Amino acid sequence: MSSSSSSSQTEKAAGASPSVPPLPTNRIVLGCGAASLDYLATVAAFPKPDDKIRSTSLKVEGGGNTGNALTCAARLGLQPRIISKVANDAQGRKALAELEADGVDTSYMVVSENGNSPFTYVIVDNQTKTRTCIFTPGYPEMVPEDLSKSSLCSALDGASLVYFDGRFHETALVVAEEASRRKIPIFIDAERKREGLDDLLNLATYLVCSEKFPQAWTTAPSIPSALVSILMRVPNIKFVIVTLGEKGCIMLERSINEASEMEETNVGSLLESLRQKVDRNATVPTCISSKSSLRVSADGVGALSGRLLVCTAEVVPPLELIDTTGAGDAFIGAVLYGGCWM
Amino acid sequence: MSSSSSSSQTEKAAGASPSVPPLPTNRIVLGCGAASLDYLATVAAFPKPDDKIRSTSLKVEGGGNTGNALTCAARLGLQPRIISKVANDAQGRKALAELEADGVDTSYMVVSENGNSPFTYVIVDNQTKTRTCIFTPGYPEMVPEDLSKSSLCSALDGASLVYFDGRFHETALVVAEEASRRKIPIFIDAERKREGLDDLLNLATYLVCSEKFPQAWTTAPSIPSALVSILMRVPNIKFVIVTLGEKGCIMLERSINEASEMEETNVGSLLESLRQKVDRNATVPTCISSKSSLRVSADGVGALSGRLLVCTAEVVPPLELIDTTGAGDAFIGAVLYGGCWM
Repeated sequence: MSSSSSSSQTEKAAGASPSVPPLPTNRIVLGCGAASLDYLATVAAFPKPDDKIRSTSLKVEGGGNTGNALTCAARLGLQPRIISKVANDAQGRKALAELEADGVDTSYMVVSENGNSPFTYVIVDNQTKTRTCIFTPGYPEMVPEDLSKSSLCSALDGASLVYFDGRFHETALVVAEEASRRKIPIFIDAERKREGLDDLLNLATYLVCSEKFPQAWTTAPSIPSALVSILMRVPNIKFVIVTLGEKGCIMLERSINEASEMEETNVGSLLESLRQKVDRNATVPTCISSKSSLRVSADGVGALSGRLLVCTAEVVPPLELIDTTGAGDAFIGAVLYGGCWM
Repeated sequence: MSSSSSSSQTEKAAGASPSVPPLPTNRIVLGCGAASLDYLATVAAFPKPDDKIRSTSLKVEGGGNTGNALTCAARLGLQPRIISKVANDAQGRKALAELEADGVDTSYMVVSENGNSPFTYVIVDNQTKTRTCIFTPGYPEMVPEDLSKSSLCSALDGASLVYFDGRFHETALVVAEEASRRKIPIFIDAERKREGLDDLLNLATYLVCSEKFPQAWTTAPSIPSALVSILMRVPNIKFVIVTLGEKGCIMLERSINEASEMEETNVGSLLESLRQKVDRNATVPTCISSKSSLRVSADGVGALSGRLLVCTAEVVPPLELIDTTGAGDAFIGAVLYGGCWM
């Protein structure tokens, strides 16, 4: 994320504007996952194989799901700590410097003397509005031995929640197990199926996932039925949110109390009824919630006690829309902010 | 170019193997043009717009036409000097270090304290054997004021020839004009039409060009007739070579003596007759030359006194062919080696 927008955000956060959100008592959050550098190369047209073209502009900015999400969390006033790995090369040093400038605590970062930092080359085609990403993993990869027990304990001390983007799954599992022992809530961002993700999900308290993940992971026939399936399969999860880009998001929350009514409500019909209550002329985000402790069912999946919520996204005028890179990560940052109040 | 092949080449050059070419008396050559860094990212398949993929391997190596050509020249035993511009960033420092390790004199490089070094991101698809290049120019651009008069004079002192790849055309023209005043032969690599190239061509002694350049520049109907047109349009050029990849190259050389025969030979027919003399079973490169001081003509273009040469390329077995990146630049390096004997 650019340092220019960083400083303006910091000014906003520091100012006394009534739009600045209030701060929770415990603002420390720990994130474990990808922090890298993005090379955003704008081109006049997406290249064909064997083409030789030149970029019209280049921006080099910090990236990676966890790096982005924690940057957003810091800009919302939280005190994020990050566990990730870079090399002591120009890219790694720049990624670290950007995080630190945004107020992300990098004391728990693993910095390899040799090897290379992870980076993503992003081919930005502003005419067709496409962002094509080629990610080069860092080397050597992060392993649990990179993180000492004392460093792990120190990183978790006082944290109100821990967030994982699914990267470095072996290290992530070690961190999640210790967090679980300490009863620290675990947030997981499931962008896609990844090696070791299921082990992490078994320890998860809250789950945010991409539009495609629920059906890919459950093979359920629709997104709402997949959400029911997720809550039934992973009994510790309190809620699952699926992000839908400009269409907002859907959240299915498990109720602590058993459903008061015995009658089952089909999750697809429930979603449809909530969507009909949305004011289509509103430009600010709105949230429509069902009653709580409904008996929510999905055909062939089962039923559970919970409530369903539909949230719309802010309507951004096309001319104001510059770049959606990292928008999902910023959403996670806001969810982490919300998580500090729970 | 990789440092590993560099060192093995250096060993070969230093050894007493009979395959090492003899060294000319004056081995100093000056090159002015692009030196940059290549990020060679191998992918499993060329990405579609909006894809998110990861590279399977990454190599970071020095590149740029002049950087590559002078690296080859150094490996052939010449003493190259380079005029180019990078920034004092990680990429620029690595490009400089590679050139120096290969024995290229970087004393005349312009190093900008700020800005960014030029680099090329190369998407390497080994399945389809494509190399897609996205070049990001350096900033700030090179301007003639970057090169002091004393530095220019010192760079040219004792040089047996000067080579240009057509980049930094304003600075290149200043260097070429001074070389021309000192009667130092000027080699130009014309990859494509570029701003300011025609001014450079007016000072050129020898020209090497890509397969597409002769017809693009002259609008002649065939490559051989375009070669005649080039020699007629640029009276100072002694020869022009067009490279044809695996098909080798064609050279048209101007004769100092007037043609002894009055009869004109059509350049297309002459090329055909030379090609028929090529041994198609040979795997080592061969060169077939016409008689010298022929009256070579091209329809609608004119005629001049010269000779035509056809050279074949070495037949490289597909399994031994790893990467053709920079092959044309290596060819230039060999031409520079030849130029030191002229």
